[in-house]
Amino acid sequence: MSIRVGIYGYGNLGRGVECAIKKNPDMELVAVFTRRNKESVEILTKTAKVCHVDEVESMVDEIDVMILCGGSATDLPVQTPKLSKLFNVIDSFDTHAKIPQHFANVDASAKEAKKVAIISVGWDPGMFSLNRLYANAILVDGKDYTFWGKGISQGHSDAIRRIEGVKNAKQYTVPIEEAVNAVRSGSNPELTTRQKHLRECYVVAEEGADKARIEAEIKNMPNYFADYDTTVYFISEEELQRDHAGLPHGGVVIRSGKTGWNDEHSHTIEYSLKLDSNPEFTASVLVAYARAAVRLNKEGKSGCKTVFDIAPAYLTSMSGEEIREHLL
Amino acid sequence: MSIRVGIYGYGNLGRGVECAIKKNPDMELVAVFTRRNKESVEILTKTAKVCHVDEVESMVDEIDVMILCGGSATDLPVQTPKLSKLFNVIDSFDTHAKIPQHFANVDASAKEAKKVAIISVGWDPGMFSLNRLYANAILVDGKDYTFWGKGISQGHSDAIRRIEGVKNAKQYTVPIEEAVNAVRSGSNPELTTRQKHLRECYVVAEEGADKARIEAEIKNMPNYFADYDTTVYFISEEELQRDHAGLPHGGVVIRSGKTGWNDEHSHTIEYSLKLDSNPEFTASVLVAYARAAVRLNKEGKSGCKTVFDIAPAYLTSMSGEEIREHLL
Repeated sequence: MSIRVGIYGYGNLGRGVECAIKKNPDMELVAVFTRRNKESVEILTKTAKVCHVDEVESMVDEIDVMILCGGSATDLPVQTPKLSKLFNVIDSFDTHAKIPQHFANVDASAKEAKKVAIISVGWDPGMFSLNRLYANAILVDGKDYTFWGKGISQGHSDAIRRIEGVKNAKQYTVPIEEAVNAVRSGSNPELTTRQKHLRECYVVAEEGADKARIEAEIKNMPNYFADYDTTVYFISEEELQRDHAGLPHGGVVIRSGKTGWNDEHSHTIEYSLKLDSNPEFTASVLVAYARAAVRLNKEGKSGCKTVFDIAPAYLTSMSGEEIREHLL
Repeated sequence: MSIRVGIYGYGNLGRGVECAIKKNPDMELVAVFTRRNKESVEILTKTAKVCHVDEVESMVDEIDVMILCGGSATDLPVQTPKLSKLFNVIDSFDTHAKIPQHFANVDASAKEAKKVAIISVGWDPGMFSLNRLYANAILVDGKDYTFWGKGISQGHSDAIRRIEGVKNAKQYTVPIEEAVNAVRSGSNPELTTRQKHLRECYVVAEEGADKARIEAEIKNMPNYFADYDTTVYFISEEELQRDHAGLPHGGVVIRSGKTGWNDEHSHTIEYSLKLDSNPEFTASVLVAYARAAVRLNKEGKSGCKTVFDIAPAYLTSMSGEEIREHLL
């Protein structure tokens, strides 16, 4: 019997999950839950239904795992604890400083309901975290580096859009090649924020807006831009739609470290992603962990987990024999 | 209390394990077991003892996990089933075609003894296998590539040394850059054996040997060289010792695949290793999994496992809270 999946929230990530489910023949999309008027939401999967979020309790017997596709700022802190009382759940919570609190909240409700909840799934946090852990466990004496991009940062794009006189904007985070190469060489450099990434902003200004002021406001914005070398390009809305409509992203995690009785040998472990679509890749990771959540729950497990707690074999539809034969 | 480790076999890999244990403050080397006259074996760890393999049964209460450092051809098929009756064990069994049989043998004896045995640990099989599994679970619709090198292949070096008139030899497996770049581009090329790797041989001939014959014998050797572009360099023993004494290795695992309702987006996942010392890196992986074996056994688990069956959190000495805070 296939794994019956629900999608809670139907933005870019929810649509990505829908596409990923189509690629996994052992999984089936049952329903998409929306806060909008459900008649206004059209989905791609003809065999699935659209439900209002208020209907979620009526679906507990029809869904094996719910994939939560809301945002980390206000949606997931409420939704994941709440829905893990009803379903096995997966989320992509990425507000790093709040993970311990979120973990504790979700763990309490999932344990009480005897459900499995896997939080902070995706690529960072997610696959990048896993690679940091594996690399740290192997090269105990070493140093970690993470570079992001080249890719669109939604948070930084939104920050620019909030500036007066800005009609639209896209911001690319770009890793600085010299820094990446210095790390790859194994020299374990100390790098400042400015030395690791630069920021490229494509901005559509409103008619008659003061571009010099907009540029200065961007470049001096604390936390978001002030610590980086930032370049601002003013372009037309047409150019923005034509050249910057996608959501590419990626990045690299590198650990280099020493082994040997006298630290005589160096090693470098590198994991990198090049993604055409950040939400679709994130969604593909969520779906693999959704399979794991259902399996673990069938074994009687419950509570909150992260990617660190899941044995890799749980992620694939292949059997133990198959993965030992084909992938080991 | 620290994890008490035994090393069974003291060649390059055994010495690498000894060095790796020194890097892990929660672990302690108790004894090295050797088939040689034990008075002839000198180890680096002053607090550990050297035992003859015949003494192994007397040490069952003093060792939490035994790391087997023998070869896959004849040592491990006998040693891993035998020693898993006495200890939690880790091996680096890498004869791919025989893994199912080895797994079954080890599983039977480890289960009977209520011990945990983790087989085929290292980087390939091992970390490369893990990355193939994760990437397959995420990008269901895609294609895998593995490139090895640049690095010394012991098996190929040995094969050259068996040729008449060869005094010494080292063979480097070299990935072909054009092939790696074609894969990185996401074009999913079909590559022949010859297109993926080339082989460089550094050969010390015996005085008066027929170098042309040696070169022809190498290049035409079935399985080892005939399917590759092979270059043979004749050098002196001094040059071999000076320039080719190390055991560097590495390689890259790449999976590229499609997502989207109409396969409209491409993604590339890449994992690469650059290793100064193949045995020391392999040993560092073995030691991390040794920690996992002890922990799993304390939880009451038993039987044969591979890297696919081990949740990443078991590998590190850090607590769940620490890894969620620092690595997630």
